[in-house]
Amino acid sequence: MRIVMKFGGTSVADLRRIRNVASRVRREVAAGNEVAVVVSAMAGVTNQLVAWCQELSPLHDAREYDTVVATGEQVSTGLLAIALQEIGVDARSWAGWQVPVATDGAHGKARIQAIEGAELIRRMARGEVPVVAGFQGIGPDRRITTLGRGGSDTSAVALAAALKADRCDIYTDVDGVYTTDPRIVPRARKLERIAYEEMLELASVGAKVLQTRSVELAMKEHVRVQVLSSFEDVPGTLVVDEDEIVEKELLAGIAFSRDEAKITIRRVPDRPGIAAAVFGAMAAENVNVDMIVQNISAEGTTDMTFTVGKADLPRAKAALAAARERIGYAEIAADGDVAKISVVGVGMRSHAGVASTMFRTLAEKGINIQAITTSEIKVSVLIGAEYAELAVRALHTAYGLDAG
Amino acid sequence: MRIVMKFGGTSVADLRRIRNVASRVRREVAAGNEVAVVVSAMAGVTNQLVAWCQELSPLHDAREYDTVVATGEQVSTGLLAIALQEIGVDARSWAGWQVPVATDGAHGKARIQAIEGAELIRRMARGEVPVVAGFQGIGPDRRITTLGRGGSDTSAVALAAALKADRCDIYTDVDGVYTTDPRIVPRARKLERIAYEEMLELASVGAKVLQTRSVELAMKEHVRVQVLSSFEDVPGTLVVDEDEIVEKELLAGIAFSRDEAKITIRRVPDRPGIAAAVFGAMAAENVNVDMIVQNISAEGTTDMTFTVGKADLPRAKAALAAARERIGYAEIAADGDVAKISVVGVGMRSHAGVASTMFRTLAEKGINIQAITTSEIKVSVLIGAEYAELAVRALHTAYGLDAG
Repeated sequence: MRIVMKFGGTSVADLRRIRNVASRVRREVAAGNEVAVVVSAMAGVTNQLVAWCQELSPLHDAREYDTVVATGEQVSTGLLAIALQEIGVDARSWAGWQVPVATDGAHGKARIQAIEGAELIRRMARGEVPVVAGFQGIGPDRRITTLGRGGSDTSAVALAAALKADRCDIYTDVDGVYTTDPRIVPRARKLERIAYEEMLELASVGAKVLQTRSVELAMKEHVRVQVLSSFEDVPGTLVVDEDEIVEKELLAGIAFSRDEAKITIRRVPDRPGIAAAVFGAMAAENVNVDMIVQNISAEGTTDMTFTVGKADLPRAKAALAAARERIGYAEIAADGDVAKISVVGVGMRSHAGVASTMFRTLAEKGINIQAITTSEIKVSVLIGAEYAELAVRALHTAYGLDAG
Repeated sequence: MRIVMKFGGTSVADLRRIRNVASRVRREVAAGNEVAVVVSAMAGVTNQLVAWCQELSPLHDAREYDTVVATGEQVSTGLLAIALQEIGVDARSWAGWQVPVATDGAHGKARIQAIEGAELIRRMARGEVPVVAGFQGIGPDRRITTLGRGGSDTSAVALAAALKADRCDIYTDVDGVYTTDPRIVPRARKLERIAYEEMLELASVGAKVLQTRSVELAMKEHVRVQVLSSFEDVPGTLVVDEDEIVEKELLAGIAFSRDEAKITIRRVPDRPGIAAAVFGAMAAENVNVDMIVQNISAEGTTDMTFTVGKADLPRAKAALAAARERIGYAEIAADGDVAKISVVGVGMRSHAGVASTMFRTLAEKGINIQAITTSEIKVSVLIGAEYAELAVRALHTAYGLDAG
């Protein structure tokens, strides 16, 4: 097998851990695999470098920022290569510009455009382990680019695609993807497999195991991704095409988020163009709107409720205040004390009744639903924040997700 | 004028000092000069990176060492470029591979072969300040190379040659080159100018202001080098071709070193081939021999005295012990308690009597001379270590070097 192994900052935080990573790599090599490694900067290093740039100039040149910040990964690659050689594994480091990992010119948040894999494939075939710097590439200006924070996951997946790897193993500080947060539901189960779409929905509602962009890329390029622990020796979770999941369960998991706030606009005139006026004002301020509910009209006016990210709430309120004349509402109410609960699973496509199970379960617990949105593989509800844990636990049991 | 400004690790040790460097650069730009800057790593950074490589593997791959260690300079270039832009100076960072600074493939101690200066010259002409990473380049294997510790001086001089700069200003923690160490002789004078050859002789006997290789390169390429303080605002010392020194003084300065040890081999057979046997044994052990004295023969044997670096003394003694049969001496005496005093000056070429002044001055102070060597521009004597300060002070006065 050909495998890309990716290790994050906590996995290479000091020399002892770098040696630990080296012995994991050696084990895969000894098992007869062709291995390439992607590493992040040693934990804390990137923060220090970013802080220096910020302190010198809050509005610093992103090209110089990239020059400074990319050094963290370069150090890790060299040190890991030395640690690998020390235990008898043929290895060499590769900076982004050496591979090369070609990106666009958006310094500080670049996107990978192409990775030249031929030379690395040749070297892997003769037993050499390329140790590639994550998070970085080279732009059209021949200068170093970085992919934005957390970009090393994306580097690993893109490299796996370029090398036609059989699997991309992402080593992290959790040992896989769970049906829900085990801190809330002790009987949460680790998933053996999860579909890309499910992973995306779970990530976007708060289960931050993999960077969203890396999952999108894996889905597009059909890269099989495994999430596993760099500290414990247990099987992880495989993120794969839906077709690869034979025993489809109804749900993959339950996610929740307290990062949203609810805005209610009372007594808006119920006429065409009002929704456009309200959400146009939000879009103009770059405020993303998530769930939307509009009440039935009464006496020519209606109430409109929607959610925005909590951080965007002040801007959203200011934009609505400025547009008051144009929209013509009576008053605005904002509520940050809400939680969004989402049940996610590709099994929904072929099973009816997922939403009704959700609503019934919440009703039985006396939990009021304030808003609902659905997609093909997800149902989300907005409830009072105080009910979040209760709701997640009840749903976890109701959908039969509890372990053993 | 076109100027290369070089700042060492203590000059860019923290953000405050980097800002200080930026304002010095701005001053030169504001004065109408075209400026390129060469920087070292922030003080302490390189030591940390070297220590990590050492700890992972004492016999680490020099190519990986270079990958790791070269990041220190890359960070400095990016931070200084940001600091320059922040105060309105157009600047950009350049890693060795970007310029490119082509070196040979001797990783860890590479030598610069060529610097491509055309693009930098173009950019300087339109007011941009290139901030170039010292100490690094790119090898024939397209991997990062480093020049060996202290190589940034050499980077600066090589860049000045490639850019046809009018001057290479080396900013350091001393404010120039003195007639001797001011800690020993308070009346030591700062030299306005010194010839390359003099600088080389002074450097090689202990006045470590500039890296020897950088002075050799400056001499070969006719680069005018100025040594000056990055903390004080005073004129420094110009290191130039001998021809540029109109008012040649007899001496440039007096150097001393306690880094040598004296070895005396007693009662060696006085026959051809003995010197070859002794110094062949030294050469085989890579021990550099400096001063050599051979006494007049008596009864077919002679005493032979020479000096080696103190650090080499154990190896030198072991080599002599091993070669005892072949050489056939009676006994060996070693003395580490010696000092070498050197008077240096291109003026010696046209003035007789320099050596005799030295011998007379030392004799007047009752200081016994144990060995002598001379070159065209230098006279060195070996004396008891306890007399070192006395000798330097007496000679400084005797040659008229004392300040007003």
